[in-house]
Amino acid sequence: MSIRLCFAVLFAVSALLARAPAFAEVIPIDDPAAEKLFAEAQAKAGFWKLMHFYESQNDQTYCGVASAAIILNSLEVDSPPAPAIYPFRKFDQSNFFSEAVLAIKPPKYVHLSGLTLEELAGMIRTYGVTVDVHHAAPPMDLDGFRAIAGAALADPKARVEINYHRKALGQDGAGHHSPLAAYDAVSDRFLVLDVARYKLPPVWASAADVWASMATEDSDAKANRGFLVIRRK
Amino acid sequence: MSIRLCFAVLFAVSALLARAPAFAEVIPIDDPAAEKLFAEAQAKAGFWKLMHFYESQNDQTYCGVASAAIILNSLEVDSPPAPAIYPFRKFDQSNFFSEAVLAIKPPKYVHLSGLTLEELAGMIRTYGVTVDVHHAAPPMDLDGFRAIAGAALADPKARVEINYHRKALGQDGAGHHSPLAAYDAVSDRFLVLDVARYKLPPVWASAADVWASMATEDSDAKANRGFLVIRRK
Repeated sequence: MSIRLCFAVLFAVSALLARAPAFAEVIPIDDPAAEKLFAEAQAKAGFWKLMHFYESQNDQTYCGVASAAIILNSLEVDSPPAPAIYPFRKFDQSNFFSEAVLAIKPPKYVHLSGLTLEELAGMIRTYGVTVDVHHAAPPMDLDGFRAIAGAALADPKARVEINYHRKALGQDGAGHHSPLAAYDAVSDRFLVLDVARYKLPPVWASAADVWASMATEDSDAKANRGFLVIRRK
Repeated sequence: MSIRLCFAVLFAVSALLARAPAFAEVIPIDDPAAEKLFAEAQAKAGFWKLMHFYESQNDQTYCGVASAAIILNSLEVDSPPAPAIYPFRKFDQSNFFSEAVLAIKPPKYVHLSGLTLEELAGMIRTYGVTVDVHHAAPPMDLDGFRAIAGAALADPKARVEINYHRKALGQDGAGHHSPLAAYDAVSDRFLVLDVARYKLPPVWASAADVWASMATEDSDAKANRGFLVIRRK
């Protein structure tokens, strides 16, 4: 093989690699680039309420439970009592398990296998909010996700929760749940409020990467993961 | 008294009231005015790290413990193990009570009476960070507080924690601890990350009001409250 041919092959391979990066690139929330994204993002109507109640999952399979508590608190939904803070109250990862939630899946099994998208939707719905379930599978697609989630993030009375596989975001781990907190149309990125805060920070991820991370099969659900839109009635 | 004199007296009283408002006016973090303060604030070097680890006090007397956990996590200080999230780890309001912290005040007594500024400083110091204690009493004054806290909030390796009485901020309640997260020089306001999140949101409070809230006597300590500056070595 001539030197010229070698260079041609190398150039072609480099160009291919440049077009198809091997892993997604997310931007941690405390990166200077993230501050710019936050400043320019227009769809962040629930951001400060979500930060007010942002908390870590108490257990490594409690991502769905923690996400639900944050979202319900941020929407100012009435919670069950919380004895340690009586007479005040808020949702936590214990009192979330009301009689109606326990009937869907009790803590014993959530500890073993977490929650599917449908299970979490059913639980949140017991608290009198509307919950739309969108699996990341046809007829839903990236454009539909971007439009629905972007509009919800611009609405003070709506929240978005995603069920995704970390691999498509270039992160170690597997199936996970977390709220979204903002969408920036200029960079086409969503802010993911990761609830495994001991492990990874909140990140800005591209819409395409978030979509790819949701368009993965959850073997427990025998369906693709996806997203929820939760609204106060 | 003539009508004219009546008006003169009314006018004088109104002018006095306008100059001395009866209660402090704090701005909740999700108020549109707060978004402007956040955007213009220059001293917020630790803000995103603090939000990453912001959590609620687990008990109504755990304000100091929650503040310490948030600050130590945000400075990425090595924590004791946290069994539920092993092999990951972070400070929480349980593992914060190491042998050295227990020797200062065990949970039983923190549940009864909370922590004084000096007790909290001593506890945080056991984790290998430097802690400067500033009581809100002479020779410290408002200008000194503003300069020291403002500089610390602009330093990514420093954090500020305040011990204050809620009344001077126009809030229901008594002695309290919380981290500060930002300072805006234009409005001369600090962002207080209230850890009793079930009760009150984070607020922007004027430097004068924060100072007045710290310049109050803690009867347990027999000294004025005040603030801590905590730094990674």
